[in-house]
Amino acid sequence: MSFIPVAPESDFPIQNLPYGVFSTPSHPRPRIGVAIGDQILDLSAIKHLFTGPVLSQHQDVFDEPTLNSFMGLGQAAWKEARALLQNLLSAGHARLRDDQELRARAFTSQAVATMHLPATIGDYTDFYSSRQHATNVGIMFRGQENALMPNWLHLPVGYHGRASSVVVSGTPIRRPVGQMRPDNTQPPVYGASKRLDIELEMAFFVGPGNRLGEPIPISKAHEHIFGMVLMNDWSARDIQQWEYVPLGPFLGKSFGTTISPWVVPMDALLPFAVPNPEQDPKPLPYLRHDQPYTFDINLFVALKGENMSQAAIICRSNFKHMYWTMLQQLTHHSVNGCNLRPGDLVASGTISGPEPESFGSLLELSWRGTKPIELGQGQTRTFLLDGDEVTLTGYCQGDGYRVGFGQCSGRVLPALLPA
Amino acid sequence: MSFIPVAPESDFPIQNLPYGVFSTPSHPRPRIGVAIGDQILDLSAIKHLFTGPVLSQHQDVFDEPTLNSFMGLGQAAWKEARALLQNLLSAGHARLRDDQELRARAFTSQAVATMHLPATIGDYTDFYSSRQHATNVGIMFRGQENALMPNWLHLPVGYHGRASSVVVSGTPIRRPVGQMRPDNTQPPVYGASKRLDIELEMAFFVGPGNRLGEPIPISKAHEHIFGMVLMNDWSARDIQQWEYVPLGPFLGKSFGTTISPWVVPMDALLPFAVPNPEQDPKPLPYLRHDQPYTFDINLFVALKGENMSQAAIICRSNFKHMYWTMLQQLTHHSVNGCNLRPGDLVASGTISGPEPESFGSLLELSWRGTKPIELGQGQTRTFLLDGDEVTLTGYCQGDGYRVGFGQCSGRVLPALLPA
Repeated sequence: MSFIPVAPESDFPIQNLPYGVFSTPSHPRPRIGVAIGDQILDLSAIKHLFTGPVLSQHQDVFDEPTLNSFMGLGQAAWKEARALLQNLLSAGHARLRDDQELRARAFTSQAVATMHLPATIGDYTDFYSSRQHATNVGIMFRGQENALMPNWLHLPVGYHGRASSVVVSGTPIRRPVGQMRPDNTQPPVYGASKRLDIELEMAFFVGPGNRLGEPIPISKAHEHIFGMVLMNDWSARDIQQWEYVPLGPFLGKSFGTTISPWVVPMDALLPFAVPNPEQDPKPLPYLRHDQPYTFDINLFVALKGENMSQAAIICRSNFKHMYWTMLQQLTHHSVNGCNLRPGDLVASGTISGPEPESFGSLLELSWRGTKPIELGQGQTRTFLLDGDEVTLTGYCQGDGYRVGFGQCSGRVLPALLPA
Repeated sequence: MSFIPVAPESDFPIQNLPYGVFSTPSHPRPRIGVAIGDQILDLSAIKHLFTGPVLSQHQDVFDEPTLNSFMGLGQAAWKEARALLQNLLSAGHARLRDDQELRARAFTSQAVATMHLPATIGDYTDFYSSRQHATNVGIMFRGQENALMPNWLHLPVGYHGRASSVVVSGTPIRRPVGQMRPDNTQPPVYGASKRLDIELEMAFFVGPGNRLGEPIPISKAHEHIFGMVLMNDWSARDIQQWEYVPLGPFLGKSFGTTISPWVVPMDALLPFAVPNPEQDPKPLPYLRHDQPYTFDINLFVALKGENMSQAAIICRSNFKHMYWTMLQQLTHHSVNGCNLRPGDLVASGTISGPEPESFGSLLELSWRGTKPIELGQGQTRTFLLDGDEVTLTGYCQGDGYRVGFGQCSGRVLPALLPA
């Protein structure tokens, strides 16, 4: 228990302690904080309290405007920070609880804070690791027989995404303009996307990197994973469909990718690990591991149109539906010697479960636009309309507490078409 | 003419003046320089001489360890810098010529300098804009009938590459390990790539960026292009072939991409512009421009095996063979609102001309490994062997001078296979 009040349905009890970067109107410099209840503990204000063997040498990382340096310090530093913060915030610990002057400086209400990207993202990679999603898309585009590509069950398929357009929750997303070919018997056309979609994903931030040419074996992969966020990989299906052969998604994705601002550390998630899915065929040895690294994280997508009084839940899913684990993704990513760097973002791909209500994109929920999704209040959707606000949430349910992710939210602005 | 001696076959006469980042053993801090003959003019040592209306406010950009800030200043700053440097270096101009003390501090021999990446690359994008290359690869993998994909003549196809593994010329490249499926009747295997290849490319650095959601019209595209380098997009064909469906190249490329260290400014290249290729079908209006933006740049690939006394030229090509221009690439890249940032790297894709000797990859030169390439000295190659050193060079031929790119070079190290 913390001396900071935490409601039972709060995403941010003392068991969580996610890291983020925030600023306030009175103090506009972005700085590192930890969420507790509805408050933020400003780590730049208490950096002098990090006096353990590792962090006493690195207190400056808490003065930086991003988490990259802290991420790069690795597990020993993360564990030391977490243990100290759980102590400092606990109801039974006097050091911070009884220092009214320091408390006044160090705590900020989340309601007045502006959140920023938690890290400078050097590279952003998106995997495609939900079997149900890959199967659904495969059925729609290639039919039941060839739904899964031959490589899919042998390796975690992934691709490079655009790092510059990864934005923090709350950033509006402009409907993209581009080239499409809605009618294959006609030439392509230029215009605003008519098939704007979401993708329910989660992503992890890389901690310590590896040198170019030096792969990370799967036995060490966990040491390189700092923590997780929610991610909405906004997608323009009509742009994507015309452009993506043979080199993959490009402008159909690169107009914006939203992440939640609070990075939940792996140590807060490990209590919610469940057995890994059976993998058949058994992967090659470099991708095998025994450690349970599949996580029971409840996920929700809510959509609120401009004329709706409240949001409708359009998807209920769970991160445990992933086929490939994050350990396998990270190991595969570096097997060729590709260097990862602290702050790199690695995403899961769309998370779809077995039930139709757990499909993680409008493409699947509306089955390629053929089945309108009922939102109630007289509203339906196949793809997104201007003004729609999409919010992802997620949490692990503990005994009387939740380890949650806050919100990953964005609203669609109308396209800017040249006069 | 400069007071610094410049041989006629030098890549770096006063008509060129490319920018790079260098350090020296006696002065290990990376800093910005300009190449002239076999010398480097250290701009940090002469930053006080940039007294024009734009740069007098921004002299600090020449104290930085990368070109990003200078790139971001835009055309007015670039033109002012170039005019000043051409003056300062000219034989008839006394300011620098006669200041022996400043000359001693400001000039360094290229022979003692270590070159670094010219910019921090936020995102690296690779296009696929040579029609002959796309056709060659299409014939090999899909047959003559379906060689070009339906979208290829309508838009510049491109994809996101890996920024972290872009390295400067001279960096060794470790042969990648990964998953391949050489025999489709057998399961995939893990091991060192047996089909390690090169790709002859050029790339441009982005100058001023655009804000997310705000496309760059083609009429403004030139203002966002800082300058060009040579690029070798090392490729492991066996890894690539197994992984790339449906999301594009990933680990088959991300183990290393080499660029030349000197960024040749567009103002040095514009005198070598030639008419653009006829485009049929005519592209959509957002991709149309009249300005000649196709460049006559002679390109060469040399390969030197460990037991060879000298390198063999295996490809003679020209950048003028590109179908899509850099203006079209940049405009298409931002049409969806994707934000570009100063220092982003945008590559051409493999440059192949109409003649077999102008094909820009071993895949094409050896026609998928079926026709060994004769190197002389008793050597042949289909794909690269350990110890092979590959060097790209290129230059525009002026009247009595060359505007050249220096070297883009790398040597293959043997794979690291776990015991």
